[in-house]
Amino acid sequence: MKIAVLGTGMVGTTIADKLVALGHEVRMGARSADNEKAKAWAAAAGSKGSQGTFADAAAFGELAFNCTLGAGTLDAVRSVGSALDGKILVDISNPLDFSAGMPPTLFSGNTDSLGEQLQRALPNVKVVKALNTINCQIMVDAGRLKGEHDVFMSGNDKEAKGRVAEILRGWFGWKSVIDLGDISTARGTESYLPLWVRLWGALGTADFNIKIVR
Amino acid sequence: MKIAVLGTGMVGTTIADKLVALGHEVRMGARSADNEKAKAWAAAAGSKGSQGTFADAAAFGELAFNCTLGAGTLDAVRSVGSALDGKILVDISNPLDFSAGMPPTLFSGNTDSLGEQLQRALPNVKVVKALNTINCQIMVDAGRLKGEHDVFMSGNDKEAKGRVAEILRGWFGWKSVIDLGDISTARGTESYLPLWVRLWGALGTADFNIKIVR
Repeated sequence: MKIAVLGTGMVGTTIADKLVALGHEVRMGARSADNEKAKAWAAAAGSKGSQGTFADAAAFGELAFNCTLGAGTLDAVRSVGSALDGKILVDISNPLDFSAGMPPTLFSGNTDSLGEQLQRALPNVKVVKALNTINCQIMVDAGRLKGEHDVFMSGNDKEAKGRVAEILRGWFGWKSVIDLGDISTARGTESYLPLWVRLWGALGTADFNIKIVR
Repeated sequence: MKIAVLGTGMVGTTIADKLVALGHEVRMGARSADNEKAKAWAAAAGSKGSQGTFADAAAFGELAFNCTLGAGTLDAVRSVGSALDGKILVDISNPLDFSAGMPPTLFSGNTDSLGEQLQRALPNVKVVKALNTINCQIMVDAGRLKGEHDVFMSGNDKEAKGRVAEILRGWFGWKSVIDLGDISTARGTESYLPLWVRLWGALGTADFNIKIVR
């Protein structure tokens, strides 16, 4: 299918590469149409890859992934106008604030979340927060970790979450997808990031995830 | 050994019961010496249990557990004066704000943590944040969940963390204790609570924990 990937960083290129490898047509969106990273990605991706502005990509995709940095997410999605209306937007962003160095703090997450802000900014889009609790290699290849582990979803549209769960299972190899509830539950997964960052420090690797044990 | 348990709620009574069952002498501390819940607990606990003010309990214990509600933690510990100086205080509290109903928000956790506030209020005490990421039944009986799962520690004193790890393993049945680093890493485990609360809702039980999968 035709898919938009908003964002040109590590998350965006990893998601876009995986989608192309799966045979999809992917348009990577950036702030400007001549973004060097997006052009380099599209050139390397071959006939299935293209690039343009956020709005170009949004118009192209039947489905979209928001892989922008949290600090730029709202500006990015505001620039797409109505191009995503009625479509599913998988929101991978996190409200990380690196302005005071490492470890980052959160600029949202306690009485609001970036997922909710995104849903409010795009009321006709089916925002599903997912994949924001692991690093990008694991996002697209859940099997790289040993044993079972979980990925979470938050969103207001049940059907959209069902479709995203299929994508996570079928395309990215996730065996366990936990539906946390409506988009306000994105506060939960976004608030987990400060623990993720300390675990990264303590474990000495970003190649980990959590499994819910009962 | 002689142990102080600060707090008379579910966490305090569960920890205190377990410590008495292990053969320790436990004094439960409350805001006032005639706290009804503390008196009821001590009466039921038999010869190994006693109660008093936070300061009474702190003076009695060679080791202390902070099981007060987050909103009352700083007031509670300020009332102990120097009675905990040189001792280990296992801090189980979380900065949960229930004032706007459920789910709670956090009154701290992004650029500070309750663990750090506690350590600053009691600079001569060895504060070790631990056990604040699970419900109290699991805290004292890690084996009640199937399979491996993890508990976290944050603190500035390495020796104190080593002693707390022994306690978690030997007394409460924890097989995996992850040292996240200094007390500032309590921001990580305290920030996890918003996810814990959503998982509680999605799973329909508080009887769960997370395991780090690599």
